[in-house]
Amino acid sequence: MSETQPLSELSPTDLAAFRDAQQTAYDALVASGLKLDLTRGKPSAEQLDLSDGLLSLPATTTTPDGVDARNYGGLAGVTELRAMFAELLGLELDQLSAQGTSSLTLMKDVLSYLWLKGGVDSERPWGAEEKVRFVCPVPGYDRHFTLLEWFGIEMVPVPMTDDGPDVDAVTALVADDPSFKGMWLVPTYANPTGQVTTQEVAERLASMPTAAPDFKIFWDNAYALHHLTAEETKTADIVSLAAVSGHPHRPVLFASTSKITYAGAGVAFVGGSRETVTWFHANLGLGSIGPDKVNHLRHLEFFGTPQGVRDHMDKHRELLAPKFAEVERILDERLGGLGVATWTHPRGGYFVSLDVLPGTASRVIELAKTAGVALTPAGSAYPYRRDPDDTNIRLAPSFPTLAEVTGSMEAVATCVLLAAAEKLLG
Amino acid sequence: MSETQPLSELSPTDLAAFRDAQQTAYDALVASGLKLDLTRGKPSAEQLDLSDGLLSLPATTTTPDGVDARNYGGLAGVTELRAMFAELLGLELDQLSAQGTSSLTLMKDVLSYLWLKGGVDSERPWGAEEKVRFVCPVPGYDRHFTLLEWFGIEMVPVPMTDDGPDVDAVTALVADDPSFKGMWLVPTYANPTGQVTTQEVAERLASMPTAAPDFKIFWDNAYALHHLTAEETKTADIVSLAAVSGHPHRPVLFASTSKITYAGAGVAFVGGSRETVTWFHANLGLGSIGPDKVNHLRHLEFFGTPQGVRDHMDKHRELLAPKFAEVERILDERLGGLGVATWTHPRGGYFVSLDVLPGTASRVIELAKTAGVALTPAGSAYPYRRDPDDTNIRLAPSFPTLAEVTGSMEAVATCVLLAAAEKLLG
Repeated sequence: MSETQPLSELSPTDLAAFRDAQQTAYDALVASGLKLDLTRGKPSAEQLDLSDGLLSLPATTTTPDGVDARNYGGLAGVTELRAMFAELLGLELDQLSAQGTSSLTLMKDVLSYLWLKGGVDSERPWGAEEKVRFVCPVPGYDRHFTLLEWFGIEMVPVPMTDDGPDVDAVTALVADDPSFKGMWLVPTYANPTGQVTTQEVAERLASMPTAAPDFKIFWDNAYALHHLTAEETKTADIVSLAAVSGHPHRPVLFASTSKITYAGAGVAFVGGSRETVTWFHANLGLGSIGPDKVNHLRHLEFFGTPQGVRDHMDKHRELLAPKFAEVERILDERLGGLGVATWTHPRGGYFVSLDVLPGTASRVIELAKTAGVALTPAGSAYPYRRDPDDTNIRLAPSFPTLAEVTGSMEAVATCVLLAAAEKLLG
Repeated sequence: MSETQPLSELSPTDLAAFRDAQQTAYDALVASGLKLDLTRGKPSAEQLDLSDGLLSLPATTTTPDGVDARNYGGLAGVTELRAMFAELLGLELDQLSAQGTSSLTLMKDVLSYLWLKGGVDSERPWGAEEKVRFVCPVPGYDRHFTLLEWFGIEMVPVPMTDDGPDVDAVTALVADDPSFKGMWLVPTYANPTGQVTTQEVAERLASMPTAAPDFKIFWDNAYALHHLTAEETKTADIVSLAAVSGHPHRPVLFASTSKITYAGAGVAFVGGSRETVTWFHANLGLGSIGPDKVNHLRHLEFFGTPQGVRDHMDKHRELLAPKFAEVERILDERLGGLGVATWTHPRGGYFVSLDVLPGTASRVIELAKTAGVALTPAGSAYPYRRDPDDTNIRLAPSFPTLAEVTGSMEAVATCVLLAAAEKLLG
């Protein structure tokens, strides 16, 4: 699109002039006193407003199957809400449990149960193993990695490709080494790259031989319904794929309404084979007499039907798509053709993944910070916060207003250009 | 009150006649087809109705300190709700965290963190110790015991006295044996005995030497505000007592609104020293981006002030006190003076603890079950479900209607008398 030439082809004099121009632009940015934030994948206030109908619900306190939602009980959650999201997630009712507000908490719970007790198909608790390792597609979700770090689980990165995780790399790691107990995967609109794991890759992950008999795919379908275009990508049916390939208990699914209704007050889900869900409840039940069924009922009444959820997501798309388009426009206009960055073009989810010149990501983030634009810390999308090439920056345009996205991204572009020029000048 | 004589003083003939009379009464009970339940400490529908104002709250989505309750963040919970319950529980603001709906979940979380990471004052994670044991006052809360069992923590019972746990027994156990890492205590209106731990006992528990440097008192103040009389028992200030005696991190407090608002959709709290709360959040934060702040705000608006909570509890008392009085009346009228049972006279909480003739509790529970009256399984109030004397039965009269309490208790009395007569006849 751009007619400019790659920075690396500029003469030293031209490059120095370019650097000086960017420095001047940057100084002006700093002087302008920005206070902007592109760090977290948080819904905006406008998006949250879409769900304010929740505030005066539920209209009744009895679930359709006759349970008083206000009292104790019902470990699996409100049946009809489970049915609604089972349909949306392509599961059977008894393959899904509805719980509290956070799928991250459910991931920690599942890891705790595996660690202390072992899974349906474990020979012993994971905590009794000499070493436990996880395959981590990168760049990935920082909270996935810090959670594993808390457990002392060693993380081994594999690259994300356009089709999902590099499945050759995954299969090679897990085939002979029983210390590999699991892997993370955000199958649809991955955090932060936006990639969608294809049916073929999912099938290979479901069927691949693993040395560990209890290998788990933590299938974090956080953005299952979070389309940015009219095309509604369908997530691969990992539970069925795993079942037919003889590894029925391999996947553990996670999802939530955090980015459908309220980020802090939605409903989170955990799923898998019937046995996995039964196992989850058996361990959960030691510390729970049931989830917040009133909030389940509130959500059930708010949506009415699975189609109600899809319709609701269209409203989110109307708010989000222009922000993503603005990120794309500015990256393209400011950085296109200069050979200093590549970026993803997500068709859903909450992030744009920006790769700058190797060795400049932390410099860009530092420059942006000084200019008042908060970006996710360098290396966040990698295990142990180590981005080996210091190249990746995660951009989260959902929370700021459109005008703030414009301001932030113009600033980010300036920082990328300045850091690139500095780098090329050596 | 009763003018009858102890059964044990009856002649064999009179006793046999008494047994036959009870058998006839019991057969009539069975024939009447009861379907009653005294098993769980659940609020009744009428009690839950008291909080239905929650259903159309919150009226705003912004907390008093300007936070959007609908979005992510705020790991400690909504400040003003914490302040409200800190006042009610006698804590400073930063000694209390407001979380999800269940204090039982918080207990499991705290145990998990101690197990995997160790506490503020631990030398190593509890899971790395050769053996971990807990002191368990008995009879106690079944879910406390099953939770420890899940972790593989060995339970050693000590008796409850009228002043709280037998503190001499506790101090003797923990003084020299570092495997004792903690103890359970429901300090106010204990489950199931209703006893209140006195200031003196609390002081001794706070100050007693323990071989383990990281000994914890799990201070489950589930019934802090749940008075059955006009006298509002004040719970001992264990956090201050522990601080002044040099063991500031010993207590971990738990409380919730499960029996204040909704049993399944309230707010739970965890507290202790500032360092304990900071430690809790540091571990919690790996698997949480913050609790349900909308529900916090809902509760804050519903109560308005700490006095609002107290006033609300008066309404619960109006509903509960007649049920407890009915239990007392029937036990007294039917069993008084017969030397076959003793029972507690709780001034708060949710239970009456009934001790029948040694060796007959499981028979009474079996008889009641056959007659259609569900009682908590024999031994439930003891670690490993082992009531050494087979004597204890927990009665929970909150959930049934008053008429159902009458029916249940008349049935229970008949079962107690029949079992006693059978036992005495040998």
